Amino acid sequence: MYIQLALDRMTVDKAIKITKEVNCYIDWIEVGTSLIKEFGIKSIYTIKNVFPDKPLVADIKTIDNAKYECELCFEAGADIITVMGVAPLVTIETCLNEAAKRKRNIMIDLLNVNETTLRKLIEYKDAIFCAHLSKDEQELSVSKAEHSFDRFNILEDRTLAIAGGISIDSIEKIKPFNPLIIIVGSAITQAADKVKAARELKQSILFMED
Amino acid sequence: MYIQLALDRMTVDKAIKITKEVNCYIDWIEVGTSLIKEFGIKSIYTIKNVFPDKPLVADIKTIDNAKYECELCFEAGADIITVMGVAPLVTIETCLNEAAKRKRNIMIDLLNVNETTLRKLIEYKDAIFCAHLSKDEQELSVSKAEHSFDRFNILEDRTLAIAGGISIDSIEKIKPFNPLIIIVGSAITQAADKVKAARELKQSILFMED
Repeated sequence: MYIQLALDRMTVDKAIKITKEVNCYIDWIEVGTSLIKEFGIKSIYTIKNVFPDKPLVADIKTIDNAKYECELCFEAGADIITVMGVAPLVTIETCLNEAAKRKRNIMIDLLNVNETTLRKLIEYKDAIFCAHLSKDEQELSVSKAEHSFDRFNILEDRTLAIAGGISIDSIEKIKPFNPLIIIVGSAITQAADKVKAARELKQSILFMED
Repeated sequence: MYIQLALDRMTVDKAIKITKEVNCYIDWIEVGTSLIKEFGIKSIYTIKNVFPDKPLVADIKTIDNAKYECELCFEAGADIITVMGVAPLVTIETCLNEAAKRKRNIMIDLLNVNETTLRKLIEYKDAIFCAHLSKDEQELSVSKAEHSFDRFNILEDRTLAIAGGISIDSIEKIKPFNPLIIIVGSAITQAADKVKAARELKQSILFMED
């Protein structure tokens, strides 16, 4: 199980500083939507240049204009880009094709996707699927107790990422879904001791996999 | 009926140059998603500074992290921000509240919204509704002949914007829906003679309203 460090709501310099600190405990780097929208595509380029050996996920949340956004991100150094599962299928398929051309990949963000759409999306066998409780739902509406991934059971044969308020306390709950990637943001980036938080998270996963 | 000039897939300098040329024929300026994602929030700030008297729509396409994205855009000078109709309702409501606090507004992008969701969204009486055929659908899947806005009839009492490949040839088709705003991008920005294209579009609307 990999840890994808989500970098959000901070400057690019701060993102680099934090990533350097916890670099040996995390596996993938996510340039968050807020960094891309606030600072533009150069946030991807800048971060990839500092960490060329770490897979980089550009959380561009494509919902239209797929070819253009794929080109921007992949040329800036992204290994994986995100596309919204609620986008028109032609948009998702364009992202898949653009990624395949470059031997890169896409992550389909399942935010607010209904059952009917989910059953269509699982046909995209090469994609990574991201079961996602949004920041707004975490902070404003859905309690952590209500946060269930049970509906994503049908993705069991797919490459799965899980995101949304994940901390060391939620790892046990996530384990049965066997995700390839857990996406962790504030549990590391907002921790008083970020290195300790990342190390403990990494250890809890290693222990789990024994 | 207002013309909202959508500025996409170009540099900020080019966007300013084109807007200056056609300024007297257009009513609202849209800083397109591609400008925001490529160059960041400063694209909004820079364009608003050059055209302080024109309403500015930031096509940020918020789908999560609503408060943060609203703050970025409104502080950069946006008068209206876009939020996806396919977003969780808590995200849309947060955008509405953030806009109301500042006496600004939001535009709900109806891209890929189904009937059930549309009926929920129309309860947001203060919002502008944008009936939208995406770039990807225009360019890759839906023919212009298939492009129908009939399902948006239920929005008749709401403030409506219409977007998606609009040109002087499609104005007549749009007229019965009585939109407050038509969103025009490439029909002006990609025209060989941009000033002529904008003038003719403006004239066709004035004539229509006689």
